[in-house]
Amino acid sequence: MKKISIGPRTLLYPHPDLIIGTYGPGGRPDAMVAAWGGICSSQPPAVAVSVQKVRQTYENLMCEREFTVSIPSVDYVKEADYFGIVSGRDTDKFAATGLTPVKGDLVNAPYVEEFPVVLECRLLQTVEIGVHTQFIGEILDVKVDESVLGPDGKPDIAKIRPFAYDSMRREYYGFGGVIAKAFSVGREIEK
Amino acid sequence: MKKISIGPRTLLYPHPDLIIGTYGPGGRPDAMVAAWGGICSSQPPAVAVSVQKVRQTYENLMCEREFTVSIPSVDYVKEADYFGIVSGRDTDKFAATGLTPVKGDLVNAPYVEEFPVVLECRLLQTVEIGVHTQFIGEILDVKVDESVLGPDGKPDIAKIRPFAYDSMRREYYGFGGVIAKAFSVGREIEK
Repeated sequence: MKKISIGPRTLLYPHPDLIIGTYGPGGRPDAMVAAWGGICSSQPPAVAVSVQKVRQTYENLMCEREFTVSIPSVDYVKEADYFGIVSGRDTDKFAATGLTPVKGDLVNAPYVEEFPVVLECRLLQTVEIGVHTQFIGEILDVKVDESVLGPDGKPDIAKIRPFAYDSMRREYYGFGGVIAKAFSVGREIEK
Repeated sequence: MKKISIGPRTLLYPHPDLIIGTYGPGGRPDAMVAAWGGICSSQPPAVAVSVQKVRQTYENLMCEREFTVSIPSVDYVKEADYFGIVSGRDTDKFAATGLTPVKGDLVNAPYVEEFPVVLECRLLQTVEIGVHTQFIGEILDVKVDESVLGPDGKPDIAKIRPFAYDSMRREYYGFGGVIAKAFSVGREIEK
């Protein structure tokens, strides 16, 4: 299996498509897309998202130190993409997309009402890494739409229908079905 | 759309399934699974993975300060799961799975020959976050199997066939097709 070197790149599969919600100057709700991010700690439960200093969201995060992460379904790929195209400095992204900003219950930051999964986060620390600043937030609560819960009361990915970002091809792709049980299928190797 | 609070949880869609390759005591190749991680910087290109101190990989990372990230295809979900079940302290995971450790070209760390995408990383910094330590590594090179390149010479996700981890249901799920062009579909909103 010959491996081809394609140089230093920010390539990973999958990248998430995370919508960071913050309040800006005058309390205006803002939202941006972060594909550079992921869970970074189990206890406290924490998520890391990287934001460049030129972003309005950077200023908002530094000022408010609270944010949300909303996860869009494929039904809202257009709106989520738009959040990554325009700047919150000169555009009210919620007004433009018609999406609804709702203030978090635990944090002073807006989430996207129409998106099925929402994390409410309080900033724990920032980490400087080259052009990006990584914001590490404690996850104070997760909210999910009642409509995406399965019969067992747990969120069901087949109902959430999230998508991921392909940084190589600059495309979004959806998810297929369950392929295996974790911490289970590998036990066959022990036998 | 009524939102239900499910409490503070490490929930996100999608979580990646990253295989961290390191050399341990005596130069023995080791590999563990990290679902807590993601790209964290564009310049330098960097990836963050979180590892608990109890792991053999933690010691290896602290000692060698170099690592690889290999991304498995669905064909190897069993082996990848196994990497997350047993400990490198008492098991040679490569021997047990029959997978092939190959020393990186640029780093002193092994990658998984059979997995289609590999990142070679050098530790930039560590960040303490509760029970996890986050290891931030500069991506020195990305290697991909020749067989997963598309006609345009770029890696093709339909050939890579990665999978993701559902932390709520402890399941792995595959990927569906492309749903939209990024930095493009959202422009319809501007019109």
